[in-house]
Parts: sequence; C-alpha cells; structure tokens
Amino acid sequence: MTDAAPRRELPAGYQEQLDQGYAFGSVLTFAQRPLLTSVEQLAAWQPDVAVVGAPFDLGTTNRPGARFGPRALRTLVYNSGTYHLGYGIEIFEHIEVVDHGDVFCPHGQVDASLANIRSTVHDIASRGIVPFTIGGDHTVTWPAATAVADVHGFGNVGIVHFDAHADTADQIDGNLASHGTPMRRLIESGAIPGRNFVQVGLRSYWPGRDVWDWMAAQGMRWHLMDEIWSDGFPTVLDRAVAEALEGPTKLYLSIDIDSLDPAYAPGTGTPEPGGIVAADLLRAVRRLAERFDIVGMDVVEVSPPYDHADCTVNVANRLFMECLAGLAAKRAGLTAR
Amino acid sequence: MTDAAPRRELPAGYQEQLDQGYAFGSVLTFAQRPLLTSVEQLAAWQPDVAVVGAPFDLGTTNRPGARFGPRALRTLVYNSGTYHLGYGIEIFEHIEVVDHGDVFCPHGQVDASLANIRSTVHDIASRGIVPFTIGGDHTVTWPAATAVADVHGFGNVGIVHFDAHADTADQIDGNLASHGTPMRRLIESGAIPGRNFVQVGLRSYWPGRDVWDWMAAQGMRWHLMDEIWSDGFPTVLDRAVAEALEGPTKLYLSIDIDSLDPAYAPGTGTPEPGGIVAADLLRAVRRLAERFDIVGMDVVEVSPPYDHADCTVNVANRLFMECLAGLAAKRAGLTAR
Amino acid sequence: MTDAAPRRELPAGYQEQLDQGYAFGSVLTFAQRPLLTSVEQLAAWQPDVAVVGAPFDLGTTNRPGARFGPRALRTLVYNSGTYHLGYGIEIFEHIEVVDHGDVFCPHGQVDASLANIRSTVHDIASRGIVPFTIGGDHTVTWPAATAVADVHGFGNVGIVHFDAHADTADQIDGNLASHGTPMRRLIESGAIPGRNFVQVGLRSYWPGRDVWDWMAAQGMRWHLMDEIWSDGFPTVLDRAVAEALEGPTKLYLSIDIDSLDPAYAPGTGTPEPGGIVAADLLRAVRRLAERFDIVGMDVVEVSPPYDHADCTVNVANRLFMECLAGLAAKRAGLTAR
Amino acid sequence: MTDAAPRRELPAGYQEQLDQGYAFGSVLTFAQRPLLTSVEQLAAWQPDVAVVGAPFDLGTTNRPGARFGPRALRTLVYNSGTYHLGYGIEIFEHIEVVDHGDVFCPHGQVDASLANIRSTVHDIASRGIVPFTIGGDHTVTWPAATAVADVHGFGNVGIVHFDAHADTADQIDGNLASHGTPMRRLIESGAIPGRNFVQVGLRSYWPGRDVWDWMAAQGMRWHLMDEIWSDGFPTVLDRAVAEALEGPTKLYLSIDIDSLDPAYAPGTGTPEPGGIVAADLLRAVRRLAERFDIVGMDVVEVSPPYDHADCTVNVANRLFMECLAGLAAKRAGLTAR
Amino acid sequence: MTDAAPRRELPAGYQEQLDQGYAFGSVLTFAQRPLLTSVEQLAAWQPDVAVVGAPFDLGTTNRPGARFGPRALRTLVYNSGTYHLGYGIEIFEHIEVVDHGDVFCPHGQVDASLANIRSTVHDIASRGIVPFTIGGDHTVTWPAATAVADVHGFGNVGIVHFDAHADTADQIDGNLASHGTPMRRLIESGAIPGRNFVQVGLRSYWPGRDVWDWMAAQGMRWHLMDEIWSDGFPTVLDRAVAEALEGPTKLYLSIDIDSLDPAYAPGTGTPEPGGIVAADLLRAVRRLAERFDIVGMDVVEVSPPYDHADCTVNVANRLFMECLAGLAAKRAGLTAR
Amino acid sequence: MTDAAPRRELPAGYQEQLDQGYAFGSVLTFAQRPLLTSVEQLAAWQPDVAVVGAPFDLGTTNRPGARFGPRALRTLVYNSGTYHLGYGIEIFEHIEVVDHGDVFCPHGQVDASLANIRSTVHDIASRGIVPFTIGGDHTVTWPAATAVADVHGFGNVGIVHFDAHADTADQIDGNLASHGTPMRRLIESGAIPGRNFVQVGLRSYWPGRDVWDWMAAQGMRWHLMDEIWSDGFPTVLDRAVAEALEGPTKLYLSIDIDSLDPAYAPGTGTPEPGGIVAADLLRAVRRLAERFDIVGMDVVEVSPPYDHADCTVNVANRLFMECLAGLAAKRAGLTAR
Repeated sequence: MTDAAPRRELPAGYQEQLDQGYAFGSVLTFAQRPLLTSVEQLAAWQPDVAVVGAPFDLGTTNRPGARFGPRALRTLVYNSGTYHLGYGIEIFEHIEVVDHGDVFCPHGQVDASLANIRSTVHDIASRGIVPFTIGGDHTVTWPAATAVADVHGFGNVGIVHFDAHADTADQIDGNLASHGTPMRRLIESGAIPGRNFVQVGLRSYWPGRDVWDWMAAQGMRWHLMDEIWSDGFPTVLDRAVAEALEGPTKLYLSIDIDSLDPAYAPGTGTPEPGGIVAADLLRAVRRLAERFDIVGMDVVEVSPPYDHADCTVNVANRLFMECLAGLAAKRAGLTAR
Repeated sequence: MTDAAPRRELPAGYQEQLDQGYAFGSVLTFAQRPLLTSVEQLAAWQPDVAVVGAPFDLGTTNRPGARFGPRALRTLVYNSGTYHLGYGIEIFEHIEVVDHGDVFCPHGQVDASLANIRSTVHDIASRGIVPFTIGGDHTVTWPAATAVADVHGFGNVGIVHFDAHADTADQIDGNLASHGTPMRRLIESGAIPGRNFVQVGLRSYWPGRDVWDWMAAQGMRWHLMDEIWSDGFPTVLDRAVAEALEGPTKLYLSIDIDSLDPAYAPGTGTPEPGGIVAADLLRAVRRLAERFDIVGMDVVEVSPPYDHADCTVNVANRLFMECLAGLAAKRAGLTAR
Repeated sequence: MTDAAPRRELPAGYQEQLDQGYAFGSVLTFAQRPLLTSVEQLAAWQPDVAVVGAPFDLGTTNRPGARFGPRALRTLVYNSGTYHLGYGIEIFEHIEVVDHGDVFCPHGQVDASLANIRSTVHDIASRGIVPFTIGGDHTVTWPAATAVADVHGFGNVGIVHFDAHADTADQIDGNLASHGTPMRRLIESGAIPGRNFVQVGLRSYWPGRDVWDWMAAQGMRWHLMDEIWSDGFPTVLDRAVAEALEGPTKLYLSIDIDSLDPAYAPGTGTPEPGGIVAADLLRAVRRLAERFDIVGMDVVEVSPPYDHADCTVNVANRLFMECLAGLAAKRAGLTAR
Repeated sequence: MTDAAPRRELPAGYQEQLDQGYAFGSVLTFAQRPLLTSVEQLAAWQPDVAVVGAPFDLGTTNRPGARFGPRALRTLVYNSGTYHLGYGIEIFEHIEVVDHGDVFCPHGQVDASLANIRSTVHDIASRGIVPFTIGGDHTVTWPAATAVADVHGFGNVGIVHFDAHADTADQIDGNLASHGTPMRRLIESGAIPGRNFVQVGLRSYWPGRDVWDWMAAQGMRWHLMDEIWSDGFPTVLDRAVAEALEGPTKLYLSIDIDSLDPAYAPGTGTPEPGGIVAADLLRAVRRLAERFDIVGMDVVEVSPPYDHADCTVNVANRLFMECLAGLAAKRAGLTAR
Repeated sequence: MTDAAPRRELPAGYQEQLDQGYAFGSVLTFAQRPLLTSVEQLAAWQPDVAVVGAPFDLGTTNRPGARFGPRALRTLVYNSGTYHLGYGIEIFEHIEVVDHGDVFCPHGQVDASLANIRSTVHDIASRGIVPFTIGGDHTVTWPAATAVADVHGFGNVGIVHFDAHADTADQIDGNLASHGTPMRRLIESGAIPGRNFVQVGLRSYWPGRDVWDWMAAQGMRWHLMDEIWSDGFPTVLDRAVAEALEGPTKLYLSIDIDSLDPAYAPGTGTPEPGGIVAADLLRAVRRLAERFDIVGMDVVEVSPPYDHADCTVNVANRLFMECLAGLAAKRAGLTAR
Repeated sequence: MTDAAPRRELPAGYQEQLDQGYAFGSVLTFAQRPLLTSVEQLAAWQPDVAVVGAPFDLGTTNRPGARFGPRALRTLVYNSGTYHLGYGIEIFEHIEVVDHGDVFCPHGQVDASLANIRSTVHDIASRGIVPFTIGGDHTVTWPAATAVADVHGFGNVGIVHFDAHADTADQIDGNLASHGTPMRRLIESGAIPGRNFVQVGLRSYWPGRDVWDWMAAQGMRWHLMDEIWSDGFPTVLDRAVAEALEGPTKLYLSIDIDSLDPAYAPGTGTPEPGGIVAADLLRAVRRLAERFDIVGMDVVEVSPPYDHADCTVNVANRLFMECLAGLAAKRAGLTAR
C-alpha cells in the first residue's frame, strides 16, 4: 500500500480535522476515512475497501426514508475508535478503507439510479477494491451485487442474505424494481445461482406460496427465525455459509437492517418483530470476513426518520466495522474467540 | 340532495360508529364522512364534494413521507365537530361531502400513479362533484388540476397556488415529474393559462433566474412573503384572486403546506422559515370559497414522519374544513366577518 | 364457511381497496379484514374470529394513552402479508377473521364502558366466534373474560396471563375497576377459578404481601421472570398451560404488552425492565393456539403516545397474527417447529 | 408579610438547594417556591398565592396526558429567574408564593377527584390566599372556580375564559363531568353569572347550535378568533374584561392552553389551528393582574406526552409567572408599558 | 433504626403526599424516599443508604445530557412499589434509604464539581452510610469512588465496572477529567488497586493499544462481550467478582448504562451496539448485593434528551432498586433463586 | 475574485458531488460551499465570507447540545438553492463564501476552546474575510467578537445582539465563562463600547437588578419584546442599529436563536415564550447587511437534541443566508423591498 502521493492531494488541514474526531469535528465521512470521490483518485490510492452510499428509496412499499441512510452513517454515527478489542489490532493498520461518496441517485428516477449504482460499484470492484454499499432500500442490492458478479463472474459468487423478508417476488403492484424483488432479479439474470443464494432471519407473512415454490425451484435455501431460536445463531450461520459456497468461492453479504429485531433497529421501513439479536449479527459478519473471501457487502433499509437516538444508524455502522475488523484480522492472520 | 338510497348501502352499524366520534371510534374517514370508494356509488350519491387521497411521494427532492398524508388526515386528525362558529351553520346541512378513498398509487411507479390520479379526479369532476385531493407531494397537482381543466375547459380555470416554492422548474436532475415541476407542466399543456396561475407565499432561494424568466414570459404573477409582510395577507389575497380570475371564472386552489411557516407545519419535506401564519391561510380559503366558484382544491406535502403531535395534519384538515365551510356559507347565502 | 351473501353487502370498491394494501391504502381495518360492525352482519357472516377494539384507559395508574391502541393497530401497523412461513399456509384460507370495530367506551364513564365491552364480547362469543380484544388498558380483561366465561361456563375456562404485574389488587386508591385489579374481580366472581389463573412474566415491586397471600389462598400459580431466565421460556410456558388447564378445557389468553421488555414494547403505561423477549412470546401464542382450545384473547396496554416507530403497535399486531396462524394450523392439522 | 417562623420549618439544606437552581438542582417545586403541603403550614405562612396541582384528565375526549401537567410544570420548565424586566422589580419581593403540592386525584375516580379539588381550593381561598390551579384537563375548572365562588360569593366573580372551545355542552356521550362541560356546570349552579362568563379565542366546529342558543340565553358573551384577527387582541381583551366585570368586582382567569395556536402549545389534547399568539396572551394576563382583583386562576390542558422540547410546559409556566408579575406590580403601584 | 425524631422534621403533609404515589403526586424523590438534604439530617436519621445526584456532564466526548440524569430518576421514573417478588420482602422494612438531593455541580466548572462530589460522597460514606450516586457522566466515578476509598482505605475496595468502554485513557484531547479517563485516575492514585479493578461488558473500538498495555501492566482484568456471549453472563460475573475481591473485602459497583445494549438504554451519550441484556445486569447487581459487602454504587451516563418513553431512566432506577433489594435480602438472610 | 487556482486543489469529483445537491449528496458543507480548512487555503482563495463552526457548549446553564449546532447546519439543513427571490440575484455570483470547518474545541476544556475560537476568527478577520460563526452556546461570542474587535480596533465595532436574555452577568455560580456572561466580558475588556452594545428581544425574568444597574452604567441600550409588540419590529430595529453605530462604523451581529419564539426555534437550551417572529428576524439581518458594514456575525444556541424536524437548524441557516443575500445585494447595488 503506497499512499503517499494521493494523500498529498487532500486539502490542507483535512487530516488535522480528521484527527479531531472527539471535538465534534467538521469532516464527516464514513468512519472518518479519507473522502475520494473520483474514480481516478480511487485508482491511484488503491484501497482495500471503498464505502459508497446509494441514497435510493423509490422501491419502498411502506415507510420511506432510506435515502438518508448514507448521510446518517456519515454524520450521526458515534465513532468510538479504530482498535478492535477482540483481535487486539488497529483495524486500519491492516486494511486501507476510503469513502467514495454517494452514487448519484436522481430523485424519482428508478432506472437512472440503479444504472448509476451498478456502474459505480463496477468501477470499484473491477479495480480489485471491495465495495461496501450503504443503502438506500434493498432494491440497491440488485445493481450492486450484479456489478460484483460482473467482475468476479456470474456463478462465482454466493450470497448470504440477512433479512426478515425473502425479497424474491416477481413484482409488487407491477413493480419489477421494488425492494421486494431484487433477489428475484439477481437469480433470474444468473448473476447469483439460486442454490448459492441463502437467506437467514426470515419471518413475517410474506410472500405468498407461489413465490416460495419458485424459490424452491431455484434451489434457494432459507433459514427462518424459528430455526435460529431453536438451534442457535452460530449453527445456522455455519449452515448458511456452507450452502452459499457450495461451488462459488467468493462471498457477498447483503444485510437488511430489518433482519434485526425492531428493538435493535427501529429505524427501518418494514419492521418485523421477532428478529435477530444485534450481537449475533455483529459477530456473524466478523466471523465470515475473517474466514471467507468477501467480495462485496451492503447494509440497507436504514431509515433515519424512523430511528431513535441513532440506534439503527449506529448498529448499521458497526456491521460494516465488524466486517472490516474481520478483513483486517484475516490479513493479520488472527482469529477471534 | 337525495341520499336515502345510497345510505342504505352502508354496512349496518356504520352510521352508529360514525356517531361515536368522541369515543375514539373505529371508522376512520375524512371528517367522518361516508366512505364511497366506487365511482358507481359516487354517481348514485351525487355529493357536492368528494375527498380523495393521492398517496404519492416519488417526486420529493428532500424528505419523503407525504405518501402517508391521506392516511394521517383520516386517522390522526382531531375532529372537533361540524358547526361553523363564524357562520353559525352546520356545514354538512348545506353541502354533502364524501370520502372517495385513495387513488391507487403503486409504489415506485410514477407514470401509473399520476395517470390514476388524473383518471380518478376526472371521474369525480366530470360528475359535477368538486374534487378535494389530499397529497401526496406536489407532483399530484399536475394530474389533479389537469383533470379539473379537462372537465371545465382548458383556459377556463385559474389557480391560486400557496407555496414557499414556485415549482415551475422544467426538470430537476432530469426529472420532469418532480414535485418541483408540476406548475410548468400545467402551463405548458395549456391546462391553466400562465397569466391565471398566481402564486402566493414564495420565498427561499429557488429556482434560478432562467426559470423566473420563463415564468414572466408566461405572464405568471407571484407574491413573495415580503409583499405579505409589508401589505398584509388579505390585501395580497385580493390581488391574487383578481389576477387568477382575469378571464377564467372558475378557481382551483393548490396549497402546499410548506407555504405555512414551519412553526405551524413542521411535518413537510422542504420547509422554509418565514412563511404564512396559519390563521391567515385558514381565513383565506374560507373567504375564497364563500365568494368564488371553487372547482377543485388540493392540500399537499404533509409528511407525517416529520410531524409532531399531528400539528401539520390538523392544520391541513382545517384548510379543507374552512373551504367546506365557505362552500356551505355560499350556498346558505352567508358571509363571514 | 359461506360468506358470499354478506360480502355483497360491502360497499362497492371496498375489496379493491383492500387489495391495494401496498399502495398506502385508505381502508384501515385489522389485518385488512372486512369491517362488520353490526351484530347482524356478524351473525350472517359467521367468522371464526372477530377482532374488537376496547378503547378504554380510565383504569391507568401511570401513563395513559391505551385508548388509542385499537386505532393504532388498524392504521399504524405494517401489514406484511397473510402467508405463514413456519406453517406454509395462507392463514385466511383456513380461518375467517373479521374486524367488528370498536366497543363504544364513552369518555370518563367507567361503568358504561365496561358494560359495553362485556356486552359486545358476549355478542361475539355467544355466536361461537372467538373474540380477540384490542385494549385499552388491562381493566378491559375483566368484562371481556367474564363475557367469555358467561358463554362457556364459569369454571370451564383457564387463563394464561402474560404480564409484568399481577393485577390482583383488591383496590388501588379506592378504585375497584383499576387496571391493577381485573384479575381479582375475575376470580372473586368465580368466572375463572383461581387455580386456573396462571401468570407468566411477573416482576417489579408490586403488589404488597397481603395481595400475594390472597393469591396463594386462591390457588393461583405464577411464574416470575427469574424462573424464565433460569429455566427457559418454553419450559415455563408448558408448566403454565398445564396449570391453567387442570380442569378447564378452554383457554383464554390475556397479554399485557408490558410483559415484554420495554426494549420491545416502549409504548405502554407501566413499563418494567427485565421482561420477556418478543420472539419468545410470539412463538408461545402460536404454540398455544395450535394445541389448545382458545376461546378468547386480548392484547392490552399498548399506548401509542409513548411508542416509537410503531414498535409496540407492530408487536401487538403480530401477537394476534401468531395466534391466528396457530388457529389456522390447528384447523389444517399442522404443527410448527 | 412575616415569614420567619414558617421558614424555620423547612428541612435544613432546603433553601440552599433552592438557591442552586442553575446547577440542575434536586428540589423541584413551582418556580422553586417553598413546598408547603399542609393546610396548617399554609395558614401559618399566609402567602399571597398558593399554586396547587390538579392531576386529573378523566374528562378528556381526545388525547389524554394532562394528569402529568403539574409534574411537568415543576420539573421540566426552564426557570430563568424572578426579576421582571418590564416592571423592573423582583417579583417575589412583593408577593409571597408557595407551592401547595397536588390535590389527591385518585385514578379512575371522577367524583372523588373533583370533590378533592373543590375542597383544597376552598381551603386556600378561604384563607385569603389566591389559588392558582395547574391542570389537569378543563374539567378541573368546575370545582376550582366553584370553590372560589363559594368563598367570594356566588355572583361576585366574573370569569375571562381563554379557550379554543366553549366547553359549555350539557353532556358529551352522557358525561356531565367532561372537559367539554365545566362552564355549563358553573353557570347552571349560579356560581358564575352567565353574563359575566366571557370567552376569548373560540374557534373550531363545536359545539352545535342548541348549545350556542343556550349560551346566548344565559347572556354569555364570546369573542371568536376572527374578531381578534380583525380588531387586535388588546381591544378584544378590554371588551372581554369589561363584560366579565359588569357587576362583579372579582376576576377569575381560566386559560385552556389550547387557546394558543398549536405552534406555541402542541402538547395538548384537542389542538385547534388558528389560535392566539403566545405573546398576546402573556401580556394579557399580566395586564389583567395589574389592574383588576384576581381571585383565582387556572392553566389547564397541558399534556406533556404530546409536548416537544417542553414548549407547552414553558409557556404555561410563563402564563402563571406573568400573572404573578402583574400582581406584584399592582402591589408595587407599577404599570407596564 | 430509630427514625422517629428525624421524621418529625419533615414538613407536615409530606408523608401523606408520598403515600399518594399512584395519584401522579407532587413530591418527587428517589423511589419516594424522604428527602434529607443536609448532612446534619443525614447524621441524625442514619439511614443504610443515601442516594445522591451528581448532575455533571462536562466530561462527555459525544452526546451530552447526563446532567439531567438525577432529575429524571426522580421525576420520570415509574415507581411500581417496594415489595420484592423474588425475595418476598418489603425492601424498605429491612433497609432505610433516603434521598440526599444533588451535589452542587456548577455549570462549566469541572474542578469545583468534582471536588463537591468527592466531599459529599465522603460525608455520606464516613457516617457508615452506603452512597449510591446517580450520574452524570462517568467522570463522577473518579471523585465518588475515591471518597469511598478514602473512608474504607486505599486498597481495601475492589470495583466491578460494567461498561462498553474501558475509560482508562490517560487523557483525551488533553483532558485528564474526561469521562474516558476516570478509571486511570482511580488506579494511578492507588485508591483502587489495578488488579481489583475488573471490567465487564467491554466492546467497541477504543482505546488504542498503548492504553491496553498500561491496563495489563496494572494487573487489570476485563471481560469482553464476546466472553459473555460465549460463556454466559452469570459465569463471567462470578469470575469478575472473584477477581475484584482478591484481597479487598469491600465492593464498589460502577455501572455505565451504556454497558447495556442500546435497545435497552438508548438514552446515553456513547452507545455501543452488542451490549448486555438488561435482565442479566439487573439480576447481577441483586446477586452481588446479596452476597458481598457493597460500600458504594453508581449508575452513570443516563442522558434523558436521548431517551425514549423513559426506557433508560427506568432501567437505571431498577438497577439501584435491585441492589437495594439484594441489600435488604442480605440483612433478612434471604437468597434469591 | 480570482479563484481558479485554489479550486484546482479541491479533490477531483468534489465539484460534481456539490452539484448533486438534490440527490441527497455526500459532501456536506455549509450551503454546499467549498471546504477550505487551512488558513493557507483561505489566504490563497480570499473569499468574502468564511463560515466557521464553534462546537462548544460548556457554558450552558440548562439544556446542552449546542456542540452539535455546526454539524447540524452542515448536514440536516434543507438547502433549497442560491437565488434570492427578493433581490433577483444569484447570491454566490456576487460574494464568495467558503466553509472553514470547525474550530477545535476539546471537550471539557473551556479555556483552550475559547482561545482556539479567538485565534481562528482572528485568522479569518485579519485577512479581510468576514467571519460567520456557527455556535455553540453564546459563550463563543466572547472570543469571536473579541477577535473581530482585535482586527478592526477596540471601539470601532458596534453590536446588535438579538436575544431573550441580556447575557451580561458578572458570573453565574462562580463561572466567568458562562453563556450568561459573554457580553459583560466584551464590554469590560473595552472590545465593544457599552453604549454601542444594543440588545433586541429581551424578555424573561433574568438577570437581577444589580446587573441591570451595571448595564445602565455602561450606557448599554436594550429593547424588550414589549417594545417590539407595541412599536413593530422594523421601528425597533432602526433604533437599535442607530444606537449601535453612534460612533463605530462597523457592525457585528450576534443572534441567539432563543431570541425567536420557541414556536420557531424549539431546539435551544433556555427557551423563552413570547419571542420574535422568524420572518421579522430574517428580514432584519438582510436589511442590516444590505445597508451597513458587517464585520462579523454569529448564530448561537442551536441545540439539535431538542429540535424537531430540523426547524431550528433550518431557521439558523436562513439567518446566515439572508445576511449573505444582503451582502450580495449591497455589492450589486440593490435594495430589497
């Protein structure tokens, strides 16, 4: 990692401001990482991970607001440091992470927004950088994961998808680009094989039987909350990742924040009681990052207008942070308890 | 008004529930009016006014949530009665008002939603019923006012438009169906003559010079808050309605709730400090309804997720109620102080 | 179930609106079920379950607001569908459920309100329909469970009562119809035998010793949170239901939402930290419905003014839904994991 | 005023704590005045004014919560000092004010609560102390003003009543002790003559014609918001007080916080847009206290669960404070601008 | 315990008001205990425990507001009684507890505030009374625990410290009296031996390696959330207390409310997802109080402006209450399940 | 204005992101102006105005949170454009404005924070750039206005100070650097002559007589809200500015957001009902900027934790924007209505 040159391009005083995090400082980027908004900068800097916002919520069927997810993860989150207690490492000594800003998602324009997301995530992934996408609603996983599969090859990527809902409808009220349909699109296109698309945390009363039949026909596997309550989260997680990587070697993580119980994540559009405990999910992403080849990740459906005291924003941030910690540990050759 | 027959079609017990308004009752319609959701019912009943919801907020450039405006005006409003203290009349003894339910606005689908709004409002207006549209964002005025002009004739309808913003952009970020563009569409199509499109309450820092030039070229007239603070609201109102009816005899009222100061209406997407005092606007709509030929009205941009204690929802309800009171007074031959 | 005739009595367009649930639709009933507010309609339709609101909160000793519980469960809940993932069934293909509206609970009038609740629930239960009562504060269980016992016979019904508090005081500040006293009334009257009145989830510092002595003297059984944390919720649940049905064959479920930890249900009047995990309670009601003869259920003490992002409202809705799912499964001969 | 002896009865350290107001101090009384909860203490101390809480909200027809009004005015208010800028006096150098605690209003028990309020206010007034009652809902004015009339003589007291609603219904849903009926009770009993019962700020759509006819028959006078907007608040205030004191020489002020526009007082149960500006009402009470013989006052309908940032609580506090300032000025022989 | 004399010093009527707790009463003290604000009163009364507020939040690095913690625990908490269900005892029949009011913490003045806290806690502890300190931010543990060690002897007191963060930095941004540094100060001064300073619940990404090295060099022991999730809270608790009492016989408990998961305690300044379950911590403090010699306790970092529905305030109150219950049980010779 | 060179130093892609303001964009600076955080950049760019944040709230006597004022004005504000409707100009075509980031205000450290503010504002002002300071609490006006007077000469600057409170105490609870004392410090030091220190909007009950005596002795002039309500805001404004510029030719504006009525600005620490109408203050700052020589401005006491729907944040932003509009108009030779 040779970053001397690009760092010189930062505005003077920028680094000093980053260093004043405890003083309610003015530079607001993901985890106070450098903000490199151009592809050229990204190419020159060559980080390990680039975080990018996808402020799109036109696919929401209930409460909107996820358009403000990226902004909230930059500004309202509590940044408590960069040292990982479990691993005993400074995360950013082992991996380089930058904030690539937001994809341009013009209001009211579904096609343009999704095209831009796909294009930007492709720009990142094709340079060997792992894209972390901040939603936005779950529709954004369609272009984001497609772009990752474009780079790594259709069929080479498995997905572990944490969610209260399957999001595999063909359409909802005629909408093919709904937040209830992205997984259908990814499987239909061949980007992700159905049998490597594994869902964890499902509950609620949706979708209907025909959709479940379609899912089964694709070879999809899913793990209801009932299974988690009965067998424990770690056990179910191991099953899920094994299924996702039956064939593919690369792993994409898609986390709908509503996979968590609303007690942990009230600020979301379609909350479902009875969900995952936050600590379980935090440990899960760390564990997966530490052991497998993560090629992309997204955390979606954080809706700040419905959040309280930034609980949801903070846990979304920590999901990214634990994944980064796992990546750092992997590089450092460490394993957490 | 002969409504005996249609009323028999209401579910048994429905009227009793309506009569139990003070007991936190279960039937939730606009102002506890009968709910007639089919065009056939509407045609049979033949009310004076039909209230219809347009739960659409895909045109918002900032904070969303107006999709829940219609629901909130049915459920969260405080319904304090039906007798108008200023006129000394029971409003609904003089005019018949029904709730026509919501237009189907499928999520994420701009064209279908706007087409449905236009079609439904046309259904209402073409039967001689005055449509009152509950937004939804301001985009809905495009189809709603177009439908009214379809029925009454292009060029025969003037609009008094209360708003913080002109909403006359050609496009925003490429979007022609934005909540910042509906007035442009209405004038371009000829539905409403530019010189009869009169705006009241403008402030803020938008749009740019080219748009103001276009507006002037159309003969549009507008009244900034500065004029209101200097000359008083009633004076400006009289100027505005005179301009709107230079030619046309029919009047359409479009009220963006953000025309009010955020102190009165915090629950909106693009709040602008320095706006109209609620009491002024309430008295204005009553006065206009009492004196002119109202052929349609909308109140838009109520965003419940950003409201507090239903302040915004309640004032939006009262804007409709004062208009109804004015219509009732007109029929009763009364004039308020 | 032959419902063709009654359905014809619904207003035209009503069903279409129900079908537009994802479009932020206008008809707001429990779980978008048909609204049949008259006893005659109910008798004609003959559903399996009728949901009825009891908007009464005059018995609250601390924070009020439960009067708006029924309204919130109709309007603010997120309705995510009707297919049960665990059972793999469409719930409403197996059982017919309607919304019977609200009991008339005139403000400030305790006796009239409670009499109306008893009368309405009796109307439902006496027709072989299972009443599901949405509170309101816990006082409503007194008339509601009495009505059920009236129909099925005093002594033939056992209750499993989930709550942070025993609600067995003789009086509070002289009030016999407080939300802290309904269980005393039910046992004193003989409606429910003391030894079949089983409480789960108790904690806090109330009531005093004399009340616990009285409870023991009635043969009541109770299960503190301590027992749940030590032995696990399923084990305690099995103990409780066995005790409730020592003799009786019919089961009534009374759920105070404050049995849940405030993390899951902040919107309530007398919150007690250290409570039940939402997922445990959701699975419990499903399990009980699937295996036993449920003759009535209530979920009470949801206070929307103290809720956030509708967390409490949603979990209350899901408690009813899981019970309905269990009833449907029972009829379909299914057992969940 | 000789208060040396009673002050010695305060707990040691109490006064020191009162003096630490800026340090987020622990003793929480109205305006940090001494807390004298027994009648004996009151009699010994003999203050000019005693503030008493009436935590009763069983008369509310819509949003409850006013039971917490007294508590909020003691704990959440911002106490900014005791010097009146307009008069240039230390208020409490000229009048002695104490906090008499709360009337015991047992939950769910209307009659006992109202009897206790009447008894306590009578205890105060009969000792020559002016009672200031913190509501609670508007029902409390019935016993509070009756007690004052008991002491000063039926017919000797006029009332200026600031409110959005007339509160003169005979009953609501059968309830004679509703917050919509207290003024009826006061006039029916002869406590306050109808022609000296003057209402300011009325608006909304309630009650119906028969009630207005009854009011007229009693000789009542009322001043709608329309009159205020047209003629100005000071003019209308002068008219109102002149009417209230046509005969009586003593004045009671009853202020429903919903007389203010919801922008100033969102935390209330039955908000009506288009109300009084806070500054107008604050100046009004000061002016009346400075010039007339105030024998009692209440501020009611503050509902903290619906307040934001304590806006409503603070303005309610200032209404009492401005009245106290006027009383102090009167004693000091001063007149404000 | 002979308290007849001191009780006579309470204002007349005070006890009656305390007894009216259910009626939304006016006297607001911790758990409705007597308020004795002078050291003389405390000395005369000689309670077992004195609760004292430390309204100081000048040490916060992120969200402030803990200055209102003591006020909120007096006024917003739901007091549900005094009988402990698990032990079957009236808590206050076995131990005497008073509210000593607040330490004077003058705004903006760190040194004076901390000196006052140390002095007041010393006043309490030196009279054989156990001080319970309500924060305020965590800085207050520095003077509070020092005062306890002053009384019991440096080296004779062990601490179990529940927190998300270690709070052992040398300084933050040059601040030695930050809420991130108190534990460093306590160990540096010798007040508490490093090896008897045991931390439970740590997580997050702070502090950096040099601080952890320093901690290890002091012999400190800490237990990450990972250990708790793996081994169970009771097991980890037993380890922690054994370490804290390797040598010392007296135990001080310091509870940062952010040790809890934000789902249970959103109202805090530096929230960390993935924390302790409220029920576990409640049971822990009871267990420790029941078995060991508690010489002091604090609950800190409750920030009411960020709380919702008083969830955080209530759980903080219950942490004190469970400790009191344990102390009472110990005296009564009881052991909970 | 030659800014070509400095602009080339911005990170690539930065300008594109700024241009995507409607797309919920990622770069968050004041009014989307360039962020130049070093003095060198500032010197090279040489803007007309530099906005700087002072995230300091250690001087607050009541509710804290103003430390987050600068962040909120960058991230939560609704940026509606840059064209001024009243003047008909693009504001930033006439003046160059940049965001200089935040002053480093280390937590808990009053002296260091205030020294840094003075130093940074001096850096700005001494280069001929007008400093606009975003508070932070009102303490920050002490160093900020001192720095401006340092540059322009003690005695050469007059202040118009909008506030509910005089902030002229000598000390509060021993604190000389309180938010209740900055004006005392400025006059004592001679930075601003007492007779040119003019206060507008005062109300409340603070400070006491001795302070008012001191103020009079300094020749200070103040204008109570009573005067504003009687004579109108524009008249009082003209009086105030004439007094401030009796001698000095340069004008500094200090705006405590609590000068506004809490209806317009609930998010503040010490709210006082009865304040200025937002529109009046907005027009005032524009008018002053248009006509006089503004050498500095601050808007302070915005406390986001107590704000709702960003009402307070938005109006604070507009106060700066209207001042900028006035400056632009002055340069363009325009006068608003």
